[in-house]
Amino acid sequence: MSRSSALKYLEENHERFQNELIELLRIPSISHDPAHKADMDKAANWLASKLRSMGINSVEILPTQGHSVVYGEWFATRGGDSAPTVLIYGHYDVQSPEPLEDWKSQPFEPDIRNDNLYARGSSDMKGQTLASVNAVEAILKTENLPINIKFLIEGEEEIGSKHLNEFLASHREKLACDFSLNTDAGGMPDAETSSICYSLRGGASFILNIFGPGQDLHSGEYGGVIQNPIHVLSKLIADLHDENGHVTLPGFYDKVRKIDEEEHTELARLPFNDEFLLKHSGAPALWGEPEFIPAERIGARPTMEVVMFTAGQPKSAIPAKASARFSFRLVPDQNPNEVHQQFKQYLEVHMPPTVKWDLQFIIGGPGIITDRKSPEVLAMKAALQTAFDKEPIFQRVGGGIGAVLMFKHTLGIDSVLTGFSLYDDNFHGPNEKLHLPTWKKGMNALVHFFHNLTDQ
Amino acid sequence: MSRSSALKYLEENHERFQNELIELLRIPSISHDPAHKADMDKAANWLASKLRSMGINSVEILPTQGHSVVYGEWFATRGGDSAPTVLIYGHYDVQSPEPLEDWKSQPFEPDIRNDNLYARGSSDMKGQTLASVNAVEAILKTENLPINIKFLIEGEEEIGSKHLNEFLASHREKLACDFSLNTDAGGMPDAETSSICYSLRGGASFILNIFGPGQDLHSGEYGGVIQNPIHVLSKLIADLHDENGHVTLPGFYDKVRKIDEEEHTELARLPFNDEFLLKHSGAPALWGEPEFIPAERIGARPTMEVVMFTAGQPKSAIPAKASARFSFRLVPDQNPNEVHQQFKQYLEVHMPPTVKWDLQFIIGGPGIITDRKSPEVLAMKAALQTAFDKEPIFQRVGGGIGAVLMFKHTLGIDSVLTGFSLYDDNFHGPNEKLHLPTWKKGMNALVHFFHNLTDQ
Repeated sequence: MSRSSALKYLEENHERFQNELIELLRIPSISHDPAHKADMDKAANWLASKLRSMGINSVEILPTQGHSVVYGEWFATRGGDSAPTVLIYGHYDVQSPEPLEDWKSQPFEPDIRNDNLYARGSSDMKGQTLASVNAVEAILKTENLPINIKFLIEGEEEIGSKHLNEFLASHREKLACDFSLNTDAGGMPDAETSSICYSLRGGASFILNIFGPGQDLHSGEYGGVIQNPIHVLSKLIADLHDENGHVTLPGFYDKVRKIDEEEHTELARLPFNDEFLLKHSGAPALWGEPEFIPAERIGARPTMEVVMFTAGQPKSAIPAKASARFSFRLVPDQNPNEVHQQFKQYLEVHMPPTVKWDLQFIIGGPGIITDRKSPEVLAMKAALQTAFDKEPIFQRVGGGIGAVLMFKHTLGIDSVLTGFSLYDDNFHGPNEKLHLPTWKKGMNALVHFFHNLTDQ
Repeated sequence: MSRSSALKYLEENHERFQNELIELLRIPSISHDPAHKADMDKAANWLASKLRSMGINSVEILPTQGHSVVYGEWFATRGGDSAPTVLIYGHYDVQSPEPLEDWKSQPFEPDIRNDNLYARGSSDMKGQTLASVNAVEAILKTENLPINIKFLIEGEEEIGSKHLNEFLASHREKLACDFSLNTDAGGMPDAETSSICYSLRGGASFILNIFGPGQDLHSGEYGGVIQNPIHVLSKLIADLHDENGHVTLPGFYDKVRKIDEEEHTELARLPFNDEFLLKHSGAPALWGEPEFIPAERIGARPTMEVVMFTAGQPKSAIPAKASARFSFRLVPDQNPNEVHQQFKQYLEVHMPPTVKWDLQFIIGGPGIITDRKSPEVLAMKAALQTAFDKEPIFQRVGGGIGAVLMFKHTLGIDSVLTGFSLYDDNFHGPNEKLHLPTWKKGMNALVHFFHNLTDQ
């Protein structure tokens, strides 16, 4: 029993693993859409069966107020109290695939083209979840490592892990562990360069509704005397950035941690240069705070995006209502509740008397920074070095992972954050893909990681 | 034979007229929706049958490149060449009833509540169209006036009378007349006060598409380095008005006719005060150019409204695209093509390099001002005075009526513009209604009008 037998197992079973991933990807487990409730259950059952088939006996589908959690645990037969316990996190839900017309193949009919597997959830994160599951399978089937494994695979990541914190709080004992492994923080800049993430942005989402006239009004009959709520909302959005891309909410940057020279130098090593970002985004030009480099703007600076603006009809009328959904990305040590207050106060000051409005706070969580020298992070660093034959980069990731934060706050544990998705995998967008050779290396890396943890 | 016999006929047949209107309103003749093509044909056939039933023999449904025109003519048996020919305009198409949930009764299931008939098209303008038709029926059935009547009832008013001009050009001889009667320019401020409109605003509609990244991008992965097209579009919209409600397009007001003291005084008589407009719009406050009174802002000043803003999804992504539909209302002597050029040039100057864009000119036409002292306008003024027992007001109407302009430019004729819709009838919005007692007085007024034309 050695690393090589587990690695050999991965190699020999690779085709089956790929087919299993395709099976899972065929299930349209869109968590935000109640019409897909049965698909959510189907995906959870699929994972439970998979875990059982690996030899994990204590597999359960545990209910929450929303979608269920797939849970499974396996205890080492040697190592005793000194065997570390790893809580492996994953999620089986996916984002909506809209707009469908932009997909080259159907989002739930996985299609392999040029080493890439195209499907909604391939990269975020059914592929990543199964990478962990398969690596554990390889070890369980070939070795007897002194390590305890717990799987927690939730179904609500894409809707803000709404019920996860409650779940963690009510299963604290069951979930006791030394740290968590989370492969949802991917973003490898290219297929050669693996990464460990040491910071995530938090977030705060709001819906702002602006109410103008009592009903849609003929723009000929009323144009010139009644303020148009689309114009009011547009002006508010426009004024929330200055000409250099700074958010204008008073106090918004007060608690943002300064980037010191050492961190700046390290972040400057990341390959997020203009060419890279233009290529992957398809945008005509970059944008943002000119005094920060792109890697800082993505990882270490907070942002405000309007992700949806809805108002009016294709007819000549002043609409009664205009709505926008705001997504703030926050960094340590910003507090989402304080940002909520800042936003509310800003609106109170700047909203004209021609409209009424309401602001709904949808969801929020602060950003985090984790220790880059912990034994588990060092174990991952070495594992990635081995599997990818290149030193991994340390990065701050611009997205947020609610689970990481909740694990920290509610279970008191840190997460080792890595992942094998590429920067152009297009999470949440059309034509999401998984780069299969990278996925394979990732599974190898995870086998090394578990070995490095035990020094065996 | 006298006015009184025709008026008596109106009275005796009123219930039937009302039932006929309800029949016509049940047909969802939504011209912009191809799914309602059969309903369009049904409404046209209904009107043709109605005209035939009145004794108009030469009724035709004449094709256009789009929806058909219902045409009918009746020639006086006396009066000879001196009998005036009136071309009566109407339209049988309606706007979409969306959003359906805001209707208290179904838009195509007419419902009478408190003297009001609620249905899409009740006021704009199936009710108005049948008012003219019924008044002519009353005269034909009871009198022998030296007057020639032609009906032109189109099916494309709500989609900009797209094929009307071509139709007029190819039927010039058939349509020869002295002037047109158009009851689509309603907007009586209240049920006591009838009106004649002497000016209409024109318009110019555009769709502006802004393209940012090549696809929707995860707002965590890219927020801070890629410009959000919603923000770009919002800023453009915001900057198109100054803080006093003026449109900022360079040159936009250059050709706008000044309002002289006499006209200002007359417009100040209109009841469009703050209380009136607040009540009818349901808006919390009025808005607009402070140096003009509301009646001027609605009738004599040009405006820019964004009537639809569409972008994004309910997920945390920077959208690839943001779109807005712009509706400019123009006044004499603004030219829609010049406004198109002004808008395009403005966008060329102000669009940031972070996006690409296109601007589509959907439709446009200039505003008009007509003679307030012509014999037919004086005949209408006297008729309204008689039927409503109060001097009508002369107003400038903020909406546009393509037909009026085309009649002027292609047939060389002026239109007498009146109508019996009330200011709160909520054209184009939910719960459109027709005030039935006003509708009845309107029919009486039209009988007087035809008599006044012939002095009989």
